[in-house]
Amino acid sequence: MKSYLENINKAFESRARLGIMSVLMVDERVDFNTLKDTLQLTDGNLASHLRALEEAGYLHVEKQFVGRKPNTTYQASDLGREAFKTHLDALEQLILSNRKEN
Amino acid sequence: MKSYLENINKAFESRARLGIMSVLMVDERVDFNTLKDTLQLTDGNLASHLRALEEAGYLHVEKQFVGRKPNTTYQASDLGREAFKTHLDALEQLILSNRKEN
Repeated sequence: MKSYLENINKAFESRARLGIMSVLMVDERVDFNTLKDTLQLTDGNLASHLRALEEAGYLHVEKQFVGRKPNTTYQASDLGREAFKTHLDALEQLILSNRKEN
Repeated sequence: MKSYLENINKAFESRARLGIMSVLMVDERVDFNTLKDTLQLTDGNLASHLRALEEAGYLHVEKQFVGRKPNTTYQASDLGREAFKTHLDALEQLILSNRKEN
């Protein structure tokens, strides 16, 4: 297998997860509804992708109350930032290798 | 949603499919075993990704016999080439946008 393909990380494959990580690389801490609006995902779909990223150790999740309303915020972990950068580097290699050969 | 995310194509999301298309962008016509060896996939896994890409209209499949042995070859269609380029452009936008903002 071409070596860059090995660094393509299954955890980030889907468009939704690429989108989530891209938002969290920029903004320190983002709440559920902001992610939902930005990425135009359903509650269930977004929640399931966030859970997968949390289980991989790529996100920190914080549940708190704003007044009486529960508010959950998400933050990329250091591990998540590193892993996402590695993934983007692998994608870049893939793109460069395609451009070079065509 | 950020506009480049809309051009990320679900049909190419997985590492296997990125690998298949990368090989087929370079080599005009590739047989099953070559793809299997290059990408280090199992028969079942490779066959299922190839079928999905064929159903999307991104591959031409040709079944023939070499002597008495069946030999199936795969070729990227024009539609597949265009779609894959659009996908890579969207990934490039994602990468650039991440680099700019961090």
